[in-house]
Amino acid sequence: MSEFLSRRFDGMKPYAPGEQPQGREYVKLNTNESPYPPAPGVIDALGRAAAERLNLYPDPKARSARAAIAASLGVRPENVILGNGSDELLAFCFQAFCDAGAPAVYHDIAYGFYKVFARALGAPSRVVPLESDFGVDVDKLCPAGGTLVLANPNAPTGLALPISAIEAILRANPRNVVVIDEAYAEFGAESALPLIAEHGNLIVMRTMSKSRNLAGARLGYAVASEPLIADLNRMRFSFNPYNVNALSLLAAEASVRDEAYFRQCVGSIAKTRRFASDALQRRGFELTRSLANFLFARPGFMGGGEYYARLKEKGVLVRHFADERISGHVRITVGTAEQMQALLDATDEIIAAGGSAAAGESIALE
Amino acid sequence: MSEFLSRRFDGMKPYAPGEQPQGREYVKLNTNESPYPPAPGVIDALGRAAAERLNLYPDPKARSARAAIAASLGVRPENVILGNGSDELLAFCFQAFCDAGAPAVYHDIAYGFYKVFARALGAPSRVVPLESDFGVDVDKLCPAGGTLVLANPNAPTGLALPISAIEAILRANPRNVVVIDEAYAEFGAESALPLIAEHGNLIVMRTMSKSRNLAGARLGYAVASEPLIADLNRMRFSFNPYNVNALSLLAAEASVRDEAYFRQCVGSIAKTRRFASDALQRRGFELTRSLANFLFARPGFMGGGEYYARLKEKGVLVRHFADERISGHVRITVGTAEQMQALLDATDEIIAAGGSAAAGESIALE
Repeated sequence: MSEFLSRRFDGMKPYAPGEQPQGREYVKLNTNESPYPPAPGVIDALGRAAAERLNLYPDPKARSARAAIAASLGVRPENVILGNGSDELLAFCFQAFCDAGAPAVYHDIAYGFYKVFARALGAPSRVVPLESDFGVDVDKLCPAGGTLVLANPNAPTGLALPISAIEAILRANPRNVVVIDEAYAEFGAESALPLIAEHGNLIVMRTMSKSRNLAGARLGYAVASEPLIADLNRMRFSFNPYNVNALSLLAAEASVRDEAYFRQCVGSIAKTRRFASDALQRRGFELTRSLANFLFARPGFMGGGEYYARLKEKGVLVRHFADERISGHVRITVGTAEQMQALLDATDEIIAAGGSAAAGESIALE
Repeated sequence: MSEFLSRRFDGMKPYAPGEQPQGREYVKLNTNESPYPPAPGVIDALGRAAAERLNLYPDPKARSARAAIAASLGVRPENVILGNGSDELLAFCFQAFCDAGAPAVYHDIAYGFYKVFARALGAPSRVVPLESDFGVDVDKLCPAGGTLVLANPNAPTGLALPISAIEAILRANPRNVVVIDEAYAEFGAESALPLIAEHGNLIVMRTMSKSRNLAGARLGYAVASEPLIADLNRMRFSFNPYNVNALSLLAAEASVRDEAYFRQCVGSIAKTRRFASDALQRRGFELTRSLANFLFARPGFMGGGEYYARLKEKGVLVRHFADERISGHVRITVGTAEQMQALLDATDEIIAAGGSAAAGESIALE
């Protein structure tokens, strides 16, 4: 930190993304990336002709990509805004809709960036604890009187609320914005998108990083009523009007045009998730019923931090969070069946080397 | 605007980027893009293999691209941060270094985004008027006692300060950050980069949009002392750690590796700038001595707004600003010689149709 940094950032803790190691090759199951390449149409769209036009700015209105996304969702282009990843759009939400009269409301265990955004953007916060089984008590959220930001499925628990619960939350908070962060919804949860038409206070946040295999392209989008999208565009045009680069715009458009490939990829992840989940339960792990592209698992035989470290030694990267309530767990991205087998093999070696006593303690939450 | 937007944004005016028309084909001289494609190495780097890896996140530390940029500038990678365009990094500067104790200080006529950033990020501002000839009075800036943000060359005037003036400003403001926005410096101005080593309070802001022909890739970078770069990374990791996408990182690296192509492109722009400048002077325009890839020109025969509108009818787009002090001017991007000839031809038609009375009134500022 320099002597020049504004004192209002004293003690601010930035977000810590998952490790992106450069040297050694790992079985990388720590950042919820898709193990599959983008749709063939995406790769075609990013050919020489597109690269040769990079001297020109991207369309700041992202007309073509927004039209394609809107058509794929059955909404109007005016209901869609694109971001440089959903992180950027989430930051705009904290900026636009959170203040003393509408503090940010989110769970203690949630996407770790929410509290970072709130701190960095000076938004007052009210943190609602998840239940002891990591479930959501909708009644505790409903009289919130703040700008609600709810990941569904939640991260890193993977647990999802049904659309009826989201609707109850919306009805109870008509005077406040409700952001439903659906970064992982397309892997099996119910989406809140059908509620957009009736609820002018709902923002559904999506990313193409996971379900569209485009983490490298940084593409997020939000779907909401026209006035809310106009507010978010106001933020965008006050920070970075050309926020999505020209190649990513082409990738977004080509990706949503290939629904079959998308369904094939998320279907494979769901299948592998069940296989890996069953195999870990048999080895004594407690697992939540994750509907995301990751498993949230507590090894019965050692602490989460130790398991993470032992896996890393064996060349398998998963994510461990220091937060007290979940420090016994790890988050494991669902990769290919081969990658999950590598995780299981490494786990068997770790158990054989000394952790086997606790095998059989498997208790699945929910 | 929705009923939910925080009242602190009441009356905020977002930045208005230059028109990006979709239908009709224009000779587009309104957004300071390069008329040349990116370096051949950039186009090669963005091949199928790169697109096929887009399922993985970009390196949030941008190690490879930063190393290449640092090597090309003769600084260390720790002195460099990459942004999603320099706009993002400028926003981080306003956020990190401006507060009640260090208000943002910038000129009334400058890159229009400075005042938007200040407003959007709640930074107090002190606006210093340029002299009547659009020159900078260094003495008026020096006792500023705030975070100085100075475009050099300035936009939209194109006028540049020599490095000795920048050094005087730095020496007079050792307790405050000085941001020198060099978006256009590589077209002929003196860079402040050699001052980085001695001045821990200097940030030099660069973009690859103009001189590197990469507006579509959204690539900016800042060069500064390690502590200042650490501050900017603190902001970045609090908003969008994966702020630069994977393909743009490859483009950045490949671009700085081709110094010859870069010199050829900026050399062509400088040559065309002189040709177009001379031709406009002969037609009665007042021009500043622009060292950027645009001309700042006042037609002698009609107002700036009318000239802009008449050119647009004829299929030539330039930029007109409503600000009172410069509403008589237009900003004309230096494109290819052919594009500039199209501008001159259209101008001759406009003059022939009624504006010729004032021909010969040419007065060049400076």
